[in-house]
Amino acid sequence: MNKIKVAVLGATGMIGQRFVQLLEDHPYFEISGMYASERSDGKRLGETLKIRDHEFLDESLESRISAIDVKEIARTSRVAFSGLPSDIAGGIESELAAAGVAVFSNAANHRMRDDVPLLIPECNAAHLDMVREQGSFANGGFIVTNANCSTTGIALPLKVLDDAFGLEMAIASTYQAISGAGYPGVPSLDILGNVIPYIRNEEEKMEIELAKILGSVEGDRFVPSGVQVMVNCARVPVVDGHLESLVLRAGKDASVEEIVKALEEFRAEPQELQLPSAPLRPIIVRREADRPQPALDAFAGEPARARGMSAVAGRIRKKENYIKMFVLSHNTLRGGAGGSVLNAELAVSRRLL
Amino acid sequence: MNKIKVAVLGATGMIGQRFVQLLEDHPYFEISGMYASERSDGKRLGETLKIRDHEFLDESLESRISAIDVKEIARTSRVAFSGLPSDIAGGIESELAAAGVAVFSNAANHRMRDDVPLLIPECNAAHLDMVREQGSFANGGFIVTNANCSTTGIALPLKVLDDAFGLEMAIASTYQAISGAGYPGVPSLDILGNVIPYIRNEEEKMEIELAKILGSVEGDRFVPSGVQVMVNCARVPVVDGHLESLVLRAGKDASVEEIVKALEEFRAEPQELQLPSAPLRPIIVRREADRPQPALDAFAGEPARARGMSAVAGRIRKKENYIKMFVLSHNTLRGGAGGSVLNAELAVSRRLL
Amino acid sequence: MNKIKVAVLGATGMIGQRFVQLLEDHPYFEISGMYASERSDGKRLGETLKIRDHEFLDESLESRISAIDVKEIARTSRVAFSGLPSDIAGGIESELAAAGVAVFSNAANHRMRDDVPLLIPECNAAHLDMVREQGSFANGGFIVTNANCSTTGIALPLKVLDDAFGLEMAIASTYQAISGAGYPGVPSLDILGNVIPYIRNEEEKMEIELAKILGSVEGDRFVPSGVQVMVNCARVPVVDGHLESLVLRAGKDASVEEIVKALEEFRAEPQELQLPSAPLRPIIVRREADRPQPALDAFAGEPARARGMSAVAGRIRKKENYIKMFVLSHNTLRGGAGGSVLNAELAVSRRLL
Amino acid sequence: MNKIKVAVLGATGMIGQRFVQLLEDHPYFEISGMYASERSDGKRLGETLKIRDHEFLDESLESRISAIDVKEIARTSRVAFSGLPSDIAGGIESELAAAGVAVFSNAANHRMRDDVPLLIPECNAAHLDMVREQGSFANGGFIVTNANCSTTGIALPLKVLDDAFGLEMAIASTYQAISGAGYPGVPSLDILGNVIPYIRNEEEKMEIELAKILGSVEGDRFVPSGVQVMVNCARVPVVDGHLESLVLRAGKDASVEEIVKALEEFRAEPQELQLPSAPLRPIIVRREADRPQPALDAFAGEPARARGMSAVAGRIRKKENYIKMFVLSHNTLRGGAGGSVLNAELAVSRRLL
Repeated sequence: MNKIKVAVLGATGMIGQRFVQLLEDHPYFEISGMYASERSDGKRLGETLKIRDHEFLDESLESRISAIDVKEIARTSRVAFSGLPSDIAGGIESELAAAGVAVFSNAANHRMRDDVPLLIPECNAAHLDMVREQGSFANGGFIVTNANCSTTGIALPLKVLDDAFGLEMAIASTYQAISGAGYPGVPSLDILGNVIPYIRNEEEKMEIELAKILGSVEGDRFVPSGVQVMVNCARVPVVDGHLESLVLRAGKDASVEEIVKALEEFRAEPQELQLPSAPLRPIIVRREADRPQPALDAFAGEPARARGMSAVAGRIRKKENYIKMFVLSHNTLRGGAGGSVLNAELAVSRRLL
Repeated sequence: MNKIKVAVLGATGMIGQRFVQLLEDHPYFEISGMYASERSDGKRLGETLKIRDHEFLDESLESRISAIDVKEIARTSRVAFSGLPSDIAGGIESELAAAGVAVFSNAANHRMRDDVPLLIPECNAAHLDMVREQGSFANGGFIVTNANCSTTGIALPLKVLDDAFGLEMAIASTYQAISGAGYPGVPSLDILGNVIPYIRNEEEKMEIELAKILGSVEGDRFVPSGVQVMVNCARVPVVDGHLESLVLRAGKDASVEEIVKALEEFRAEPQELQLPSAPLRPIIVRREADRPQPALDAFAGEPARARGMSAVAGRIRKKENYIKMFVLSHNTLRGGAGGSVLNAELAVSRRLL
Repeated sequence: MNKIKVAVLGATGMIGQRFVQLLEDHPYFEISGMYASERSDGKRLGETLKIRDHEFLDESLESRISAIDVKEIARTSRVAFSGLPSDIAGGIESELAAAGVAVFSNAANHRMRDDVPLLIPECNAAHLDMVREQGSFANGGFIVTNANCSTTGIALPLKVLDDAFGLEMAIASTYQAISGAGYPGVPSLDILGNVIPYIRNEEEKMEIELAKILGSVEGDRFVPSGVQVMVNCARVPVVDGHLESLVLRAGKDASVEEIVKALEEFRAEPQELQLPSAPLRPIIVRREADRPQPALDAFAGEPARARGMSAVAGRIRKKENYIKMFVLSHNTLRGGAGGSVLNAELAVSRRLL
Repeated sequence: MNKIKVAVLGATGMIGQRFVQLLEDHPYFEISGMYASERSDGKRLGETLKIRDHEFLDESLESRISAIDVKEIARTSRVAFSGLPSDIAGGIESELAAAGVAVFSNAANHRMRDDVPLLIPECNAAHLDMVREQGSFANGGFIVTNANCSTTGIALPLKVLDDAFGLEMAIASTYQAISGAGYPGVPSLDILGNVIPYIRNEEEKMEIELAKILGSVEGDRFVPSGVQVMVNCARVPVVDGHLESLVLRAGKDASVEEIVKALEEFRAEPQELQLPSAPLRPIIVRREADRPQPALDAFAGEPARARGMSAVAGRIRKKENYIKMFVLSHNTLRGGAGGSVLNAELAVSRRLL
C-alpha cells in the first residue's frame, strides 16, 4: 500500500516537532515536506530542536524546512498536519482545504465552526461526518480540529463518567506544562519557582469546547452537553503533561470501585479499529497514593506508537454525590500532535483519505 | 515595659527559623532560648540555615541552639513558640503547658481538642477564650494552635465571603510550596519539574479545620460551620507561598464588585488593636490578569513586621451563583510562625500573658 | 541639599527596575522620570513588574513610564541611569552625553572606548578621570560604564589577589542566573531543569573587560592587565546571582589563611568615602563547606542600601601555586544597577556631578 | 546459549533501577533477583519508582524486591550488580566475592584497591586483568568497580586527548545532576532555583580516580597518570546528566579540527567487540553553539541498548596551548549502571564469566 503524503506545518514549533516524531515510520503516512515561517526556510530541523525526548526523532533531524507555500503543499500532499500559531493558522488552513488538502489542525481558529469536527475519536467519533458539510469537501479538502490541550485531558474521563453516571457539574483546576504555550512561550523569569494562575482564553476554551465534545449530533446540528463546567487555569514549572484536579457532581450514585471500573474498562472505536496511535487503554487508573504525576506519567501509553496517548487518572475519592480525582495527559501528544494523528487515522478508516 | 521571655522550639526547622526572624526586635517579646533536637545541641543557628531571605534574621545567626529541656524552658520563658514536628510536639507541648508555659503551636496534635483554640485572629478571635477550659490554665499554662498552612490562606476570604454572602460550598485545589513540608522535606528528585498531587492528611485537615475556624462558639462548645468543603491538594516546585484555586457557591447573589469590596474592606480585631504583626490589609485584591503569584506576592503585607501576613486574592469572577478566584498566602509566615506570633499578640492584648 | 535629578532608562526591564528600587529615598539622587520604549508609554511601572523582591520598590509602582525623549531628559535630568538593551543603548547614550547629561550605563556599547571608564570603584576608581577626555565633557555630559555582570563578580577578588600575590592566570567557569539575560530573556523551555553552556559574547567580554579593569592608567592611556583569563560560561535555572568557579595561578605563594585575610580585609575608596551604596565589606568570605549559594547569598551586603553589593567567596583551597574557590555576586545589583549607582556616587564625591 | 544469572543489589535506588532497566531483555544476562534493605522486602519495584523514563522498565515493575541475603544470592546468581550505598556496600560486596560471585559495583569502597580494576572499557580495558590478583578469584568471585559519575564523563575525552596530544593539566568545573546523589538525596529546599558549590569528597575522588584510570599497568602495578587535575564541583537543579566545563593544557599543539577529529573518530575495544551496551560513538561532538545540554543530550547513544552511554562534547575552542570545551555524560547510565553493565560485558568477552 502506498503511504499517504502529508505535510507538517509549523515544523519548528513544539507541536510541529511532535508531528515529525510521530510520523516517523508511520504505517499510513509519509512526510512529503516540513514547513514553517520564512525565517526558518532552509534550516535543518535539528537546528530548531524543541523536544527533549528527541532520541525518537532522529531520522528527520537532518531534514530541511521550507517556507509555507500553499500551492506546493496542495500539489505534493493529501494531508496537512498543522501546528501553526492561531494568528496565521486560520487563513492558511482555509486555503489548504479550498485547494483540496485534508487539514488536521491544533489551532483554535476553526474549532467552534458548525461544520468542523472538534474531534477526540474515543469521545465523539461520529462528529467526523460533519466534514461533509464543508464547502471544500467535494474537492477532497476539509478541516478537522482537535481540542485545546487542557480540554482533551479531561474530556476522556468526563465522557466516560457522563455516560455511566450522568454528570451534572465539573469543576476543574489545571496545573499546565510550559510546552503548552509553545516556543519561546513562557519566559523563564516568569515561571521558574512560580505558578501563574492565568492562561489567556484557556478557561473559556475549555468550557465551550467540552460542551461541543460531550454534546451530541442530532440531525444536522450539534447539541451542546448540559454538564456545567467551571475551570481555573494555572501554569506550573513542568515541561510536559497537564495535570488537572477535578470535582464532579454525578446524577447517579456510584462507588469508587464502580468509577474505577468504568474508567479502566473504557474502550472505544479507535481501540476496536486498532488504529496505530490508539492506546490500548485510553484511561489508565493508578492506585498509588500520589499519582498521576507529570514526571512519571506524561508519556503513558502502549503500544510504542501510542506513547503519551493515555490519560492517567488517580486519587479517585467520593464524598456524597461528588467525585474527586486528578487526571493527567500529555499536552503535546494526546492533547496536541498525537490527537491530530489519531484523528487522521480515523479518517483513513472511514475512507475520507 | 519589660518584654515577655519566649522560647523558640524547633529552631533548626523552617518554622522555627521564621519564629526567630519574626521575634528580632519584637515590641512585646524577647527570645530567651532556641531549642531543637539533641542532634543540634550547641550548633550556631547560622549553620542550620533554611530560610532564603535570611537577611532579615541577621542578629541571631550567631546564637546557639540547645537541646529541648522542659524544665529549663519553664524556668526561663513565659511563652513557647513551637515549630516542632508533630511526632514529638504533642507530648512536649502538653508538658510545657502543665509547667505553666503558654504554648503557641504550629503542630497539628492539639488543634482539634475542644478546649484548644484553632486561632486566626481575624476570623475567630473569640475562640481564644477556650484556653480557660484547659486544666493547666490556673497555673498560667495553656496551648493555642494555628491552623494548617493551606487552611489558613483560604480561611480569611472564606470567613469574609461567608459573613457577607452566606457560603454553601467551597471547592479548593491547592498549589503548595515545598517549604510547607519542612526540612529535609520533599526530595528534589520527586518535585523538580513535577507536581505531586498528594499531601498526606492535608485534605482531611483542611476540611475539619475550616469547619472549626468558621464555626461559632455557643455557650461552652464549638458549633462547626456548615459550609461544605472539598479539597484536592498538590505540591508544586515553589519555595514559599501556597496558591489555591477556589470555586465557591454563595447563598446570596453578589456582583464581582461587591465581592472585591467585601474582601478589600475587611478589617478585624487585630487591625483595630493595631497588633504589631497584623497586616493593615488582611486581604489584598489584585486587579492584574495574572496575579496572585507566589514569586511576586508571597511576602505581601505592611507594615514591615507584617511582611507575608496578608492573603492576596485575584482573578475574581462569577458564573451564576458561583464565585471563582485564586488566593495566595505565605505558608510559613501567615500560615506558620507569623500566625502564632499574631495569636500571642492577641493573647497579650487580652491580658492572658 | 537639593538632590540631583536622574532619569531611569529602560524602566520596564530587569536592570531598569533595579535602578528604580535603588533610587527610592536615595540621599543624593531623585528620580525625575522613567523611560522605556514607545510600547510602554503611559504604563504603570507595577504593570511591567519583573523583580520578585519588589516589596522594596513599593513607592514607585504606581508611577508612569514615558517613551524615551532625549530632549526632555536633557531638560529635566542631570544624570541618566541606563538599563537599555545594547541594540539601542549606544546611540541614545551618545546623544544624551552630547546634550550635557552624565550617563551611567549597563550597556556594552561604550565599554571598551579609550575615553570611557569601565568602572568598579573598589577596583579602578582612578579610571573615572578618563571622562575628561570625552568631547562632551566641557558641556557636562559624559558616559561611565559598568562591567558585564559576570565580569564584575570576579573582578573584586581578582583585583585583591593580584595586588597581594601577583596573579598569572585565572580560569573561570560560570553558573549564571536567568535575570542576566533580561526580559523576556531565556525561554523556560530552554532552561527549566537544564544548563545551557553558552551565552553569546559573554566569554569574550569577560576576557577583555577584566584586562581593562585590572589594568592601569599610565599617562593618558590604559595598559591592560597581563593576567591570562580563560572562561567557560553557562546559564543555570537560578533567578538572581552569578556563581563562578575559579582556579587561579599566583606568582607568589600564599597560605589559605593569607588568602582569606586579604579578601576579608579588603577595603577601598568607596568604603573610605562611605558612599551610600558601598558595602561595608566588599568581599565576604564564608567558612561553611557549601557556600556561597545563589539562594542564600545573592543579596549579601550591608547597610540596607548596599543589599546585593558584596561579593561572597567560599571554598577557598590551595594546591601548589593554584588557588581554588567559588565567588558569587548579584548580577543585577552589584553587576548591574547597583554598580552604576555606586559609580555615580563616586562621581558625586569627585564633584563631577 | 543460557543467559548468565545476575542479582541487582540496591534495586529501590536510582542506580539499582537503572540496572533493572538495562537488564531487561539483555542478550547475555538475566535477572535472578532484586535486592534491597529489609525495609523494602516484598515491595513491588513499581512502588519504589525513582526513574522518570520508566516506560523502558515496564516488564519488571510488578516484580518483588527481597532483603539482601548473601547466601541466597551466591546460590542463585553468577553476577551481582551493586547499586548499594557506600556505607554498606564494602562489606556485602567482599562477602559476595568471597562466596564466588562476580561483583560489578558502583560504590566507592573498593575503587582504589591495587587489585581492583577501576574500569571504563574504552579507557583502560587492560586493567580488567587485575581481578586475577584478588584472593577470591580462584573461587570465581571478584570485584570490578566503575568510576564516580563525574569522573567517568570526562575520562573518555581526557583519555583520547592525552593519547593524541599529551595532556599536562586538566581543570574541570562540574554542573552535576541531582540523581547523582541518590534518593532521597538532595532536599528540594536546598536546590530548587539554586546551585550548591560542594559535593562531599567528590573533588578528591575525581582527582585520584582519574590518575588511576588514565594511568598504566606496568608489570604488576598501576602507575598513576601524571596529568595534573584540579576540580571544583557543584550541584545544579537538573535531574539527569553531568555537564563539565574543561580547560586543558596540551603538550602538543593541535588545531580545533584535529581535536574534534580525535574525539569523533575514537573507537576502542568495546566498539570492536560490539559489546551490547557499547555506543557506536563513545564521544559525540556537537557543532551547535549551545550544546551539549543535559535536557537534550543526556540520553545520547546508539543503538537503543547504548542509550545514555555516549559522552557528548561541544564548544571546543583553543587559546594558545589551552583547549576549552564542555562535556556531558549521563551520570546514572554511562556514569553508573550502564558503566557496570558494559564492564560485565567486557568480562564475558574475556571469558571471566
